Amino acid sequence: MPVRAVAFDVFGTLVDWRSGVAEAFDASGLPGDPHELADDWRARYPRVLAEVNDGSRPWGNFDELHLATLDDLLSERSLELPPEARGRLVGAWHRLQPWPDVRSGLEELRRRRVVATLSNGHVALLVDLARHGDLRFDCLLSAELAHAYKPAPEVYRLAARLLAVEAGDLMLVAAHPWDLDGARRAGLRTAFVERPLEYGPGPPARADPQADESVSDLLALAGRLAG
Amino acid sequence: MPVRAVAFDVFGTLVDWRSGVAEAFDASGLPGDPHELADDWRARYPRVLAEVNDGSRPWGNFDELHLATLDDLLSERSLELPPEARGRLVGAWHRLQPWPDVRSGLEELRRRRVVATLSNGHVALLVDLARHGDLRFDCLLSAELAHAYKPAPEVYRLAARLLAVEAGDLMLVAAHPWDLDGARRAGLRTAFVERPLEYGPGPPARADPQADESVSDLLALAGRLAG
Repeated sequence: MPVRAVAFDVFGTLVDWRSGVAEAFDASGLPGDPHELADDWRARYPRVLAEVNDGSRPWGNFDELHLATLDDLLSERSLELPPEARGRLVGAWHRLQPWPDVRSGLEELRRRRVVATLSNGHVALLVDLARHGDLRFDCLLSAELAHAYKPAPEVYRLAARLLAVEAGDLMLVAAHPWDLDGARRAGLRTAFVERPLEYGPGPPARADPQADESVSDLLALAGRLAG
Repeated sequence: MPVRAVAFDVFGTLVDWRSGVAEAFDASGLPGDPHELADDWRARYPRVLAEVNDGSRPWGNFDELHLATLDDLLSERSLELPPEARGRLVGAWHRLQPWPDVRSGLEELRRRRVVATLSNGHVALLVDLARHGDLRFDCLLSAELAHAYKPAPEVYRLAARLLAVEAGDLMLVAAHPWDLDGARRAGLRTAFVERPLEYGPGPPARADPQADESVSDLLALAGRLAG
């Protein structure tokens, strides 16, 4: 059975959040290693999403959650930063660079099938990232439309419903096994894409042996799905 | 105050539904004037949308509503058509041609601002139309996301919220005064675009004296907003 539509995780899978956020920390004048600050900020993300999903935190989009976790990070480190500078750091998540294979890989995949995002980032953030990186999608889908965050199954199911395909005809592409696992539990097919530099040089390579496809980049995925 | 984002009505404003649907009627082998059949089918659209909005009809997407109104049309005319042929007629709404200025007009507008759809058509239908016409949007927004149809104010407000702009910073572009009127009541700005051939040659030209802009095509709109 051919895959009818492909949905992409965005942060880490399509865009390099660590370099862009570290640059913004560097420009902020805050003391400390900007990459370590970026990693700390990002590491706070799974917990707040889980809090939204379990109802202990009200719905907030990524700008709101990023600001809340930045406030926590700065407060724990006793760092001062005026509101405008905090806003610039939150804004850095809107201007991240895609990995080098992404623009052409999406174009190649779009020739044969529908290509969408399926990100926890909100729609307006995805619009900015797609414009910034000149990335062309057929449609931007976001957890915002479900008011629940991945890996909640309703997010993946909503994507299939909005694209008018069966869950099993939709493939989620991500660099994160937890996301692919959520997609599988919702009945989607899955492709793992290696992004060995997402957390900088050093961490051991991830893998997802359960994924239907495992590829090193999007051009490889296009080739695999064309075959 | 500059317009930050532009949202487009689609059927009639960006794509020529009448020619494409008439062609499909012609191919169906049904007796009668295919353009008259297309006009009759389209004329049934405001009433079913109003029924969804007032709660007397359950939510249905455009494929479902088009099938229901086609069934009515055929039954009133005592015309027979097998289910597969009815499905092909419903499918014709997924493969309509854009008006000649649309592709380049959208590209021009996208250089300076966010460009989205805001159609009563469902997301998957908009995906097919954008792919068929090679139309590039920053994002596809649909009444489907609000589970209410234009001119219900929540549809326009949802578009502003998802694009993260104030209603007054969002401009709806449409060839239909009823749609622009709904947008105005929700606080949006409006642009009327002339589509004198939407209903074929003959009907008197429409106009919307209350619109912020009135233009003959999208390139004119891009020039107006750039000024």
